[in-house]
Amino acid sequence: MTYASEKLPEEKVFKDPVHRYIHVRDKIIWDLIGTKEFQRLRRIRQLGTTFLTFHGAEHSRFNHSLGVYEIVRRIVDDVFRGRPEWNEDERLLSLCAALLHDVGHGPFSHSFEKVFHLDHEDFTQAIILGNTEINRVLSNAGAEFPKKVAEVIAKTYKNKQVISLISSQIDADRMDYLQRDAFYTGVQYGHFDMERILRVMRPREDQVVIKYSGMHAVEDYIMSRYQMYWQVYFHPVTRSAEVILSKILHRAKALYENNYSFQADPVHFYSIFKGDVTVEDYLKLDESIILYYFQEWQKEKDPILSDLCNRFINRRLFKYVEFQPSNEQLMKLIELTNLFKKAGIDPEYYLVVDSSSDLPYDFYRPGEEEERLPIHLLMPNGEIRELSRESEIVDAITGKRRTDHKLYFPLDFLKDFSEKRNLKKQILEILQLTDKDGFIL
Amino acid sequence: MTYASEKLPEEKVFKDPVHRYIHVRDKIIWDLIGTKEFQRLRRIRQLGTTFLTFHGAEHSRFNHSLGVYEIVRRIVDDVFRGRPEWNEDERLLSLCAALLHDVGHGPFSHSFEKVFHLDHEDFTQAIILGNTEINRVLSNAGAEFPKKVAEVIAKTYKNKQVISLISSQIDADRMDYLQRDAFYTGVQYGHFDMERILRVMRPREDQVVIKYSGMHAVEDYIMSRYQMYWQVYFHPVTRSAEVILSKILHRAKALYENNYSFQADPVHFYSIFKGDVTVEDYLKLDESIILYYFQEWQKEKDPILSDLCNRFINRRLFKYVEFQPSNEQLMKLIELTNLFKKAGIDPEYYLVVDSSSDLPYDFYRPGEEEERLPIHLLMPNGEIRELSRESEIVDAITGKRRTDHKLYFPLDFLKDFSEKRNLKKQILEILQLTDKDGFIL
Amino acid sequence: MTYASEKLPEEKVFKDPVHRYIHVRDKIIWDLIGTKEFQRLRRIRQLGTTFLTFHGAEHSRFNHSLGVYEIVRRIVDDVFRGRPEWNEDERLLSLCAALLHDVGHGPFSHSFEKVFHLDHEDFTQAIILGNTEINRVLSNAGAEFPKKVAEVIAKTYKNKQVISLISSQIDADRMDYLQRDAFYTGVQYGHFDMERILRVMRPREDQVVIKYSGMHAVEDYIMSRYQMYWQVYFHPVTRSAEVILSKILHRAKALYENNYSFQADPVHFYSIFKGDVTVEDYLKLDESIILYYFQEWQKEKDPILSDLCNRFINRRLFKYVEFQPSNEQLMKLIELTNLFKKAGIDPEYYLVVDSSSDLPYDFYRPGEEEERLPIHLLMPNGEIRELSRESEIVDAITGKRRTDHKLYFPLDFLKDFSEKRNLKKQILEILQLTDKDGFIL
Amino acid sequence: MTYASEKLPEEKVFKDPVHRYIHVRDKIIWDLIGTKEFQRLRRIRQLGTTFLTFHGAEHSRFNHSLGVYEIVRRIVDDVFRGRPEWNEDERLLSLCAALLHDVGHGPFSHSFEKVFHLDHEDFTQAIILGNTEINRVLSNAGAEFPKKVAEVIAKTYKNKQVISLISSQIDADRMDYLQRDAFYTGVQYGHFDMERILRVMRPREDQVVIKYSGMHAVEDYIMSRYQMYWQVYFHPVTRSAEVILSKILHRAKALYENNYSFQADPVHFYSIFKGDVTVEDYLKLDESIILYYFQEWQKEKDPILSDLCNRFINRRLFKYVEFQPSNEQLMKLIELTNLFKKAGIDPEYYLVVDSSSDLPYDFYRPGEEEERLPIHLLMPNGEIRELSRESEIVDAITGKRRTDHKLYFPLDFLKDFSEKRNLKKQILEILQLTDKDGFIL
Repeated sequence: MTYASEKLPEEKVFKDPVHRYIHVRDKIIWDLIGTKEFQRLRRIRQLGTTFLTFHGAEHSRFNHSLGVYEIVRRIVDDVFRGRPEWNEDERLLSLCAALLHDVGHGPFSHSFEKVFHLDHEDFTQAIILGNTEINRVLSNAGAEFPKKVAEVIAKTYKNKQVISLISSQIDADRMDYLQRDAFYTGVQYGHFDMERILRVMRPREDQVVIKYSGMHAVEDYIMSRYQMYWQVYFHPVTRSAEVILSKILHRAKALYENNYSFQADPVHFYSIFKGDVTVEDYLKLDESIILYYFQEWQKEKDPILSDLCNRFINRRLFKYVEFQPSNEQLMKLIELTNLFKKAGIDPEYYLVVDSSSDLPYDFYRPGEEEERLPIHLLMPNGEIRELSRESEIVDAITGKRRTDHKLYFPLDFLKDFSEKRNLKKQILEILQLTDKDGFIL
Repeated sequence: MTYASEKLPEEKVFKDPVHRYIHVRDKIIWDLIGTKEFQRLRRIRQLGTTFLTFHGAEHSRFNHSLGVYEIVRRIVDDVFRGRPEWNEDERLLSLCAALLHDVGHGPFSHSFEKVFHLDHEDFTQAIILGNTEINRVLSNAGAEFPKKVAEVIAKTYKNKQVISLISSQIDADRMDYLQRDAFYTGVQYGHFDMERILRVMRPREDQVVIKYSGMHAVEDYIMSRYQMYWQVYFHPVTRSAEVILSKILHRAKALYENNYSFQADPVHFYSIFKGDVTVEDYLKLDESIILYYFQEWQKEKDPILSDLCNRFINRRLFKYVEFQPSNEQLMKLIELTNLFKKAGIDPEYYLVVDSSSDLPYDFYRPGEEEERLPIHLLMPNGEIRELSRESEIVDAITGKRRTDHKLYFPLDFLKDFSEKRNLKKQILEILQLTDKDGFIL
Repeated sequence: MTYASEKLPEEKVFKDPVHRYIHVRDKIIWDLIGTKEFQRLRRIRQLGTTFLTFHGAEHSRFNHSLGVYEIVRRIVDDVFRGRPEWNEDERLLSLCAALLHDVGHGPFSHSFEKVFHLDHEDFTQAIILGNTEINRVLSNAGAEFPKKVAEVIAKTYKNKQVISLISSQIDADRMDYLQRDAFYTGVQYGHFDMERILRVMRPREDQVVIKYSGMHAVEDYIMSRYQMYWQVYFHPVTRSAEVILSKILHRAKALYENNYSFQADPVHFYSIFKGDVTVEDYLKLDESIILYYFQEWQKEKDPILSDLCNRFINRRLFKYVEFQPSNEQLMKLIELTNLFKKAGIDPEYYLVVDSSSDLPYDFYRPGEEEERLPIHLLMPNGEIRELSRESEIVDAITGKRRTDHKLYFPLDFLKDFSEKRNLKKQILEILQLTDKDGFIL
Repeated sequence: MTYASEKLPEEKVFKDPVHRYIHVRDKIIWDLIGTKEFQRLRRIRQLGTTFLTFHGAEHSRFNHSLGVYEIVRRIVDDVFRGRPEWNEDERLLSLCAALLHDVGHGPFSHSFEKVFHLDHEDFTQAIILGNTEINRVLSNAGAEFPKKVAEVIAKTYKNKQVISLISSQIDADRMDYLQRDAFYTGVQYGHFDMERILRVMRPREDQVVIKYSGMHAVEDYIMSRYQMYWQVYFHPVTRSAEVILSKILHRAKALYENNYSFQADPVHFYSIFKGDVTVEDYLKLDESIILYYFQEWQKEKDPILSDLCNRFINRRLFKYVEFQPSNEQLMKLIELTNLFKKAGIDPEYYLVVDSSSDLPYDFYRPGEEEERLPIHLLMPNGEIRELSRESEIVDAITGKRRTDHKLYFPLDFLKDFSEKRNLKKQILEILQLTDKDGFIL
């Protein structure tokens, strides 16, 4: 018996609040879960700063990764097995890629990636291919196996069925995170009939399609996704915490580059600041390390770093107003920038426009920046049709990008400085907030 | 209008996955939640190391504290209000004590308290009475108010109704954590009809009683508690992580006392090691700080500290066998201790008996070490009777303490040392494990 | 104390699987529930023939009526009470109208109303105003009270707030039935955050509006409604049972008018057949009576009545194909009609086009046949705006009527008659079904 | 391919609110569900008169029968398949017996069986073996197959594994009804971790055992069952309706035997009254037939039959007091009987002692009236041990029969008769109810 086909003497299960149980029979899956790179995902939250808005959302990427694995396992073992269009040899590859698809995520990925121009998918591939426990486990299943797993992550693997299980507009990744994030935040959105969707998935040449009879369940899934984006993922309070987090990282880097003498020296950040981070360095980062620094940095002499860290640790977030990038509002933004400077509040760190944008669903538009594989329906007569041609509801929102801009600032600063009372008054007038207002949350 | 009676301009709600919404109307509650001492609870897990067994159990004490507040709020606002036996003046005190009852918890409290002889309830009182943001908020409601809140926590407050809301055999604390921990772990136990129990709670002189018609819901609650203790709280894998955690703390303290030169100097631990911890020091500790040290200590030269930290961070836990403190087994334990020493494995850190014990319910036994207030039923005729006199099911388990002992050890060590093959063989024989066995989880 | 303000000595509760508990404090509500006209709703299913498709959907209108009452009770007692725009005097009227809004429903209302040109709302009013136990209970609260309740049902009551609680595009009726029908059928659709919607409902002049912050919950509700219509209420198998039911009623009436001699004489139907039904006659009908007749009529000599009843009782339903009312398909229908006649199968009873149609949401279009009150949002600045102007999702489906036509027929008949093999072949060819096909469910 | 092994071209599913989906692949199962004897179960409620207490409990035995089938299907297909101790040839027999185990239930079985000395299990066997559609379907799978199915129902089949799937202290029947009845009534009891129990069931010689690791899930199941019995099945209001129902049947039979001239002649009851009921007669009975008669009988001249039917149809139930069969209370009962007679209220119909009794769990006691197969645990070392020897909780309630007696009577009658004021006063004094009391529900 080869390692790739080795089974555990008895099935192991993980109790999971979303899927009830995660089932593991394959030795390789059990071993991958036990690697230190995979265990590290326990120290990285699935939703970054969202727990500051929805206190229940404290779950980790470890959680979610097991969930994606379980969904793919159910698809390949319960739905695809035995179908002529499915090659059973792809089973283990699909399971491993599902389990590992997020293993390259770092702490608070969203902000880190933007500020330091990193890409978690690059790290996922690097971890799979590098000198890691994960690589050693995968290699036991075949010398070429790690490379194949990395190709699935990179979406270059030849069999697109495997890719579409993990990276398409209706994949195991999305199906897990919508349900899981809904579960932990406690919102009502995010529920859809996954049981039904799984039952109607069918392998076809180069893709996974959905039987027409499951179209309404897919509609419901797309609406759930839409609501989760705007109600949870883009929540303005979460974005406020993200803004502060990004500014902390910016400030620390700027101080480092100016040879500022830190009390708590950011040794874990050196290679990131230099733009020359190795897999080994990267794997040492997790959210407990970041929070350690942020807590220590509250005591730094630099008032901006110290203030921003205090805000993040003690949840003293920026307030916000709606912002439209019109000429008129841009002029006001310039005016505000000047007023902030005059008031001694550095606008680079304390006056921030943040934009969120989502496309709930789209058909295939070749040549676009981010090509999205559309969802295809398998009609009763065997024909394959793109979803928005059949569903009125989906058609109504297809390709309609929705964007939201907000302007963030520390309202508390505007209350304090008595000698600059007049400046403060002007700023608040532009922001259309007055002292008497019940200020925004 | 006094601060104590000040309401928010509009009710605020927190989305909560267990109680759906947490409702806040009182300005003081809102302000308490905003203090940094309360926000710190976000960085302390509700269930310590349990997430290493039940991966969903990553929720914090912040979560739970809001839940206990919400339950007490519902009792006093929806059930007690207007009843002659209830003094509406106790409302705010009850709410504040509920919210703050766990604010003195530190990181991984269970192990910290045992190893360093600390008591989180002492710290809760010290935080309420000390130089803290919480104390300043509470003081706004009256100079004596912080003291009253501390008395409720200390169970010395004169009105026992308030105490029994938070600290009795059927209190808001237990009702929240059973449901919340069941929710996050995903286990089926932990569910009971809290709606019904709340509806049948009645204030009586010096206690809160339960109308007889709710007796079956109480039975179900007690059974839920029993199952949660043995299925979740005392899970042997969780205890394995606790054992390792305790041994890390022991080792670090021993090294400190022996002037070991740490690469990552445990400055945050100094006052704890010295047994002279202030509230200010204590509040600087949270689980991200602890995890930072544990990660850094993996690189220490001391092999025991380094190994134990590696085990904890990467979840390489001790295995266990059943252990009965009989003469025969104690003799074996002594023999094992000697064999471990010979094999070069320090039994102080690597051969550990851990015991768990619970009393599912008890009536009042004056003079016992831990006096427990019994649950009293309000009979249809107005009489008050102790629960186990009415309920056969509860009577069957009243006062029956159940205890479980396990012996923990690093099985992987016993597989490695080839030159000491014979010692290893003897050890495994005593543990009744052989190489061919499917080893315990 | 007047009867209208009389409270029960202790609150009564009904355990309800959807709302957990139904709470009753008012004596009049308790008395109304105890009337025989209200108890009769236990013998009328909420979803008519739907249980033949979704076996869980066996719940009665009694169930639903309590649910609507409970939702209105929560709105008026927990949300509206104390608001200046709400007149507390309307409370009891709202509760009674909510409880009684469906009391005029008969057995399998949908088919009965279509076949016999009845209207359950007329009967609801007639029962409230007639010589009934309900009328006597209501009259105890004031001589004019029954008339006011009837006016709310008729939507002529002067205060439109009360009407919109029970009959608008987001009313307690719809909120209960969507959740309840989803619960009993077991489908995933039908869930939305009612807690949130209730919290953001506000009484305004002549209507109930929704605070803008609840817009997404309303979007989710509208999508739930859309899905429930097409997935549950218009399910083609349910419609097959409705078609058969209607044809039974048609046939029985035709036979009665032709002085056919029934073995089980339809005495309960006489006045309906004559188009002269009194409230007293009407109240004697329920689904056990109807099912009694249908079972007995299986033994009638008339082959059509006997066959149709056998089909209904033993769930031997008609099959269906898609049908578009195009010229081409209408020509085919005429051809089929002739072929059915030649084959000796009466097309009047055995070849039936059934159409379902729904408008998921619409703004106010004065003068239209069915005027719908739009949903209005209360913006943060106090302005009131129609929902589809703010919500992109709702705008995308506003005013878009969706219609579905199907052609029903007894496929089993087309398999049987050997001597007419050729006719059968032609019919199946037109229906594009051949013997070898896997026939539609 | 034989009929027994014939599969449907595509799996069919039923949406089920308890198990999400019921899956059918076998042609024979699909055909059995389509028989008229099985469809008849749609017209028989699972919980008889319980819907008069818990309004949600309107579900039918059709519902439950599909559920039991689905649980057995999951056990044999997902857990037992491929294990050496399980004979795959028993699969289809297990599924058919599970589906059909309740097919002999009549309307309101509990009362009918007691009053007319019928046994639904006898009818189940008779339907399986008689001239029925079910028999014809089963016979297609083999001439001996109906007999084998009947033997499983009769518990005489040679392979006790099959019997214990359907009739033991932890069988698919109980696991379905506890969950299903909890779901529909809305009570919190009835939940347990069935997923876990299914996963740990193992076939062994002549029985099905439970792996030791699932013991706590079994404890929870037994507690759920205990609570459901006392909170739902033996609810005193439900028993009040049962008492009235039994008395209606008694009275109708007595009138029939006395040649009373019914306005609505009970032709459907003739053979039952005569004690000579055939399968054909029996199958014509369902709850719509019974309710038809009860409604018609409200107009009978016999005041007792008319009154009792009015009570049942319009839910005007008897009230109750606790009753202990002590000498003292029996003397009082005799006294009450005399007073009732004097007051002109026939005690045979209007003064009824009803007793409920349950044994939550028991080990095997050979020779006892109702021998119960105990639950056996499969210990880690392969040993098999009876549950109560391992579980303290179960041991505490093993073999402890709990019995409850209540005395039922029409309280409304005792309020009415003015000229017999004195008698009334004596009766109420004995019942310890006085006019001023808040009367029991």
